[in-house]
Amino acid sequence: MASATLTLDLNALAQNWRDLNNQTACETAAVVKANGYGLGAPAVARRLAREGVRRFFVAVAEEGAVLRSALGQNAEIFVFSGHMPTGTNLIRDHQLIPLLNSVDQMLRHFEILPGHPFGVQIDTGMNRLGVEPSEWAAVKDMLLSQGPRLVMSHLACADDPQHPMNAEQLRVFRGLTDGLNIPRSLAATGGILLGPAYHFDLCRPGIGLYGGLPFADASPVVTLDIPVIQCRDVAVGETVGYANSWTATVPSRIATISAGYADGLIRAMGPNAHVHAGDQRVPCVGRVSMDLITVDVTNLDDDPTHLQLIGRHQSVDTIADMAGTIGYEILTSLGNRYARRVIE
Amino acid sequence: MASATLTLDLNALAQNWRDLNNQTACETAAVVKANGYGLGAPAVARRLAREGVRRFFVAVAEEGAVLRSALGQNAEIFVFSGHMPTGTNLIRDHQLIPLLNSVDQMLRHFEILPGHPFGVQIDTGMNRLGVEPSEWAAVKDMLLSQGPRLVMSHLACADDPQHPMNAEQLRVFRGLTDGLNIPRSLAATGGILLGPAYHFDLCRPGIGLYGGLPFADASPVVTLDIPVIQCRDVAVGETVGYANSWTATVPSRIATISAGYADGLIRAMGPNAHVHAGDQRVPCVGRVSMDLITVDVTNLDDDPTHLQLIGRHQSVDTIADMAGTIGYEILTSLGNRYARRVIE
Repeated sequence: MASATLTLDLNALAQNWRDLNNQTACETAAVVKANGYGLGAPAVARRLAREGVRRFFVAVAEEGAVLRSALGQNAEIFVFSGHMPTGTNLIRDHQLIPLLNSVDQMLRHFEILPGHPFGVQIDTGMNRLGVEPSEWAAVKDMLLSQGPRLVMSHLACADDPQHPMNAEQLRVFRGLTDGLNIPRSLAATGGILLGPAYHFDLCRPGIGLYGGLPFADASPVVTLDIPVIQCRDVAVGETVGYANSWTATVPSRIATISAGYADGLIRAMGPNAHVHAGDQRVPCVGRVSMDLITVDVTNLDDDPTHLQLIGRHQSVDTIADMAGTIGYEILTSLGNRYARRVIE
Repeated sequence: MASATLTLDLNALAQNWRDLNNQTACETAAVVKANGYGLGAPAVARRLAREGVRRFFVAVAEEGAVLRSALGQNAEIFVFSGHMPTGTNLIRDHQLIPLLNSVDQMLRHFEILPGHPFGVQIDTGMNRLGVEPSEWAAVKDMLLSQGPRLVMSHLACADDPQHPMNAEQLRVFRGLTDGLNIPRSLAATGGILLGPAYHFDLCRPGIGLYGGLPFADASPVVTLDIPVIQCRDVAVGETVGYANSWTATVPSRIATISAGYADGLIRAMGPNAHVHAGDQRVPCVGRVSMDLITVDVTNLDDDPTHLQLIGRHQSVDTIADMAGTIGYEILTSLGNRYARRVIE
């Protein structure tokens, strides 16, 4: 292919799920929102179902519909955004379980789809999604009488184990739910690593499955190999790329590779980006273009045919550091133009 | 839809093409690489074909194949990355015209696909794609005997009309091609705005068609409306979002909307981002999450049902400024999860 090749290692993904599952005594679900963190929700979810996962989480009902087609009926699919005004048909037709976030959503759900399964998301301090504690007190008995499948909340600072917000959200969550006879979930990947107090009945890892921090021991799941279009000699004083942003100070050899920010290779990484030719690390030079990146291969013995951006030598979090962001954004930005190869 | 709605105004796109076309006396083609700068190459190209565009440009052969299906046989499709080792079948089967970038590509093309149409890209100083001037001298006569459809180069600094690189690249391009009887192209959007000296036989606008700078007079082509999931009161001292990065200093009303960096809303825009409720501008607060953004709607009279990120009040370049990047990256990052609506 003339495009770059994105390789998704489903065996590594499954290993990550098993490793996280082994850290808990409870059920371990999987978060496959944002198209499986950019890697392809159907393939990811089918492999995890083979590992024994029965509960999956998506962000919006449209994603749930795609997932239902991939998984068939033998899976529970929870929707974080809950029951949105226009989500009713999708929720009903694809047997999705909305995590109701507000009194508005509850009224909508019970009126339009009475008897349809649901869960509840409680806000324990992140102030982003979920029923407020004051509302919870008012609606709790009514909700419990309807038999929610799950009550959950989300940690705002779980990637930082030392952050006092973790214990505070745990305290609030327990205060709101202790003694209720409903399955509970608080932990995503970060929460799993905080220890058993955070695990409750169900953990729901996302980023850790895909090989990202805070799960430092994750197996890498993604490899990105980019073909070289051409190599050229650049003399001292010549510039490379848009806005003449790089100037050769020694006689240089420059490779132009076939991927850019339109492929999710965030433009901000330009000044810090490196790629690998086999085991040798070489710097990108000049600006990241829409479809192209220029690389200084002067120190290589031979012109490369491909250069690797993500893989054994550079994790998604290493790339994130280059771009000043987090591994989550690197994964979910990976684009549509790659040839996608699956190892399974 | 529970997802955000991305509206593509093909009438505005066509108007931008006509406005740019009116600035030149030569043929005006269209660049539709990166899936039409993220907006959907088939719809974009079909509309431009109705306006009279007959020549289109893509980055890689795979994109050319998609475009051929959309346009039928009555169009010329040029491929910037040229004839890559694995591109032969696509180039042949879909009658694509590779812009040969190197002696390697020329040898490959003439050996494997003798008689198949081609163009040539010359490097005039950007040192990214294209035949080096020294190589050009060596291969020019051979190339001319094969009848190239186009000889082109690309400007490194055309977004900055004052940059001396523009005149320098023009000088080099003319030095290499004056007097040859082949159609020539140097200008993309920025080059068109530099004036007639840069236009030659064919201009090939990209970003300007899609409403982005440097075409300051472009009509906006994209609107992005994001549904509100829920609104909540946040007391003084409470925090919002990941890492507790925003704290309420007055009693506040926070709306959580259904889009995030997995939808291409670059995470770096967080501290500077604003959205609009009708004509009222309101600030985003806290971090941009994968699927969610939190907005301070305290000053609105009523809870909004939708908030607009891109549209009449905020161009893609305004959003780019918020994120510390360029409009090109905002457009090409727009994700797959939107409900896409086309005005035509």
